[in-house]
Amino acid sequence: MTTYNLALIGFGGVNRALAELIRDEPQRFASLGFGLRIVAITDLALGSLVQAEGIDLGAALSMPRGTSFAGLPGGSPDPRNEEVIRNSPADIVVEATFTSPVDGEPAVSHVKWALESGKHVVSTNKGPVALRGTELSKLAADNGVRFEYEGAVMSGTPVIRLAHKMLGGLKLTAVQGILNGTSNYVLGRMEAGLGLDEAIIEAQDLGYAEADPTADIAGSDVRLKVAILANELLGASIHPSEVSTTGIQDITSADVSKALAAGLRWKLIGEARRNADGSIVASVQPVALAADHPLAGISGATNAVSFTTDLLGAVTVSGPGAGRVETAYALISDIMAVNEFVKGAVRA
Amino acid sequence: MTTYNLALIGFGGVNRALAELIRDEPQRFASLGFGLRIVAITDLALGSLVQAEGIDLGAALSMPRGTSFAGLPGGSPDPRNEEVIRNSPADIVVEATFTSPVDGEPAVSHVKWALESGKHVVSTNKGPVALRGTELSKLAADNGVRFEYEGAVMSGTPVIRLAHKMLGGLKLTAVQGILNGTSNYVLGRMEAGLGLDEAIIEAQDLGYAEADPTADIAGSDVRLKVAILANELLGASIHPSEVSTTGIQDITSADVSKALAAGLRWKLIGEARRNADGSIVASVQPVALAADHPLAGISGATNAVSFTTDLLGAVTVSGPGAGRVETAYALISDIMAVNEFVKGAVRA
Repeated sequence: MTTYNLALIGFGGVNRALAELIRDEPQRFASLGFGLRIVAITDLALGSLVQAEGIDLGAALSMPRGTSFAGLPGGSPDPRNEEVIRNSPADIVVEATFTSPVDGEPAVSHVKWALESGKHVVSTNKGPVALRGTELSKLAADNGVRFEYEGAVMSGTPVIRLAHKMLGGLKLTAVQGILNGTSNYVLGRMEAGLGLDEAIIEAQDLGYAEADPTADIAGSDVRLKVAILANELLGASIHPSEVSTTGIQDITSADVSKALAAGLRWKLIGEARRNADGSIVASVQPVALAADHPLAGISGATNAVSFTTDLLGAVTVSGPGAGRVETAYALISDIMAVNEFVKGAVRA
Repeated sequence: MTTYNLALIGFGGVNRALAELIRDEPQRFASLGFGLRIVAITDLALGSLVQAEGIDLGAALSMPRGTSFAGLPGGSPDPRNEEVIRNSPADIVVEATFTSPVDGEPAVSHVKWALESGKHVVSTNKGPVALRGTELSKLAADNGVRFEYEGAVMSGTPVIRLAHKMLGGLKLTAVQGILNGTSNYVLGRMEAGLGLDEAIIEAQDLGYAEADPTADIAGSDVRLKVAILANELLGASIHPSEVSTTGIQDITSADVSKALAAGLRWKLIGEARRNADGSIVASVQPVALAADHPLAGISGATNAVSFTTDLLGAVTVSGPGAGRVETAYALISDIMAVNEFVKGAVRA
């Protein structure tokens, strides 16, 4: 059985959840036909740790806040990202740092260093895919490795790979999604009678919304995801700034009640659509959906994507769109894709 | 590019839709990396037609009602199913005859003859899978060929393959579905104020329900699909007769209004669930779902399956559950799976 060496870049909630699964459930991976060994971790706060024989995850996971890896063998107080990514004995680099919606850095550099060094990359990071996806995928192909990023759209719920692998042979004309759990939760609570601000505070209390909920409420989080879907599934070359974006900040309780009375439900819809002339338009905006629309019944913080196809009409997938374990599963599904690629290359 | 020879068993709506796609859109299949050539057709009414160089589909599709293939080269007034399945130069047998919910015949025999002759089988037929699935899959493996039947559960909407390929590495504890479009349509119309009988008549007028809607309304159609899901996805060995089944025939308008007033929606739910002790229970019954249940918002004749998983919670897919072109796409997706198998075998 092949064992892949991993370097975790960023040691926040998602990569910690992945490390916990690898520590606690080796049989889950064995059943998939491979083993996983973490040989490097870097983190802005903790520094870096490289242990080629496999990191003691118990120790790494229980580092107290405010300490650093410096005290451990192979540890340093400095993240040393480029050095670790380029030179650690990793087969797969797991990129899960924060997303800059402006230039995708530092994640874009992390991905490039890894691909240039002949290492596969799996990532949950929207920024590099939305802003530099085409270029990075080409760099991966040029280096004979994979760049996989299923978690960038809907965390562990399959979207990109589902469209590619399960809807083959269909003509896809549009993709519509509810791609932000916070805004969907807020709209649902407004239907239950809360005001916008009250609903946002409730979402913050529940941990759905950030202290600054602007990216969720104003649609800029969804904008990145729509750019990914347009480029990946409809073959567009759209920059996120070209996605016309309106958030839910101006939706009032009166709007919501009026819609409900007419059998309609306001949802924040991200959409990419191919016009008859082949051009592709992408948008994020609140839409009052009829009750029989496939996305009208998506409630709470759930996310969903509906694919409009020629032979099947609408096919819709819904599930979690966030969460540390849920997003760690996206990384696992990406590693499974890398494993299929490696096995295929060995056979060929 | 490989071209596969097909034998179509049954020339009703679904296989006709497939033949039309093959005649009209060869580029759709070329983009998938293979060609398709129909070399044999059998049908209870039309007889049989075998043309090793490829059947003239224009002629076959325009046979007037009441005539037979006898007048065409290679034609016979008799279906000659066993002879055609065993001896025609087909690589893949496309089984789309009617389903007997009692013994699965004649489809079970068709599938066996094909697999024994070293031919792959793709099928939309619930009966053979629900009643004899394990045995037929073993026969396929013993003969080095594939038996694929994605369309048996939700026509072209991916379910079985989605669970196997997109949810790998997850522990699946339950599968719940809305697996009959007619009964879901009827329940929705009852929510709009119609009585059960009125709603059924409307569904018949729209072509959703058969002249005898018993299999839809009493749950026996869903029972077969639940057995397939339990066996295929949870590793059970359940016979459809072991699925406790209650239809919607006793749901009243009063039940529906009372539920709606409480924020609940009646749905006919097919379910297979693994208990803590490993045993698997399967049922079909009307359930009043809370509004935030992933299946509560599935409206009209749409079908859906919700998978309960350990790391992602509920992941749900919805789409068409019937229709001639939609079901023909299920056959195309099955042929794509056969092609992957063949390519893998060539490489190995």
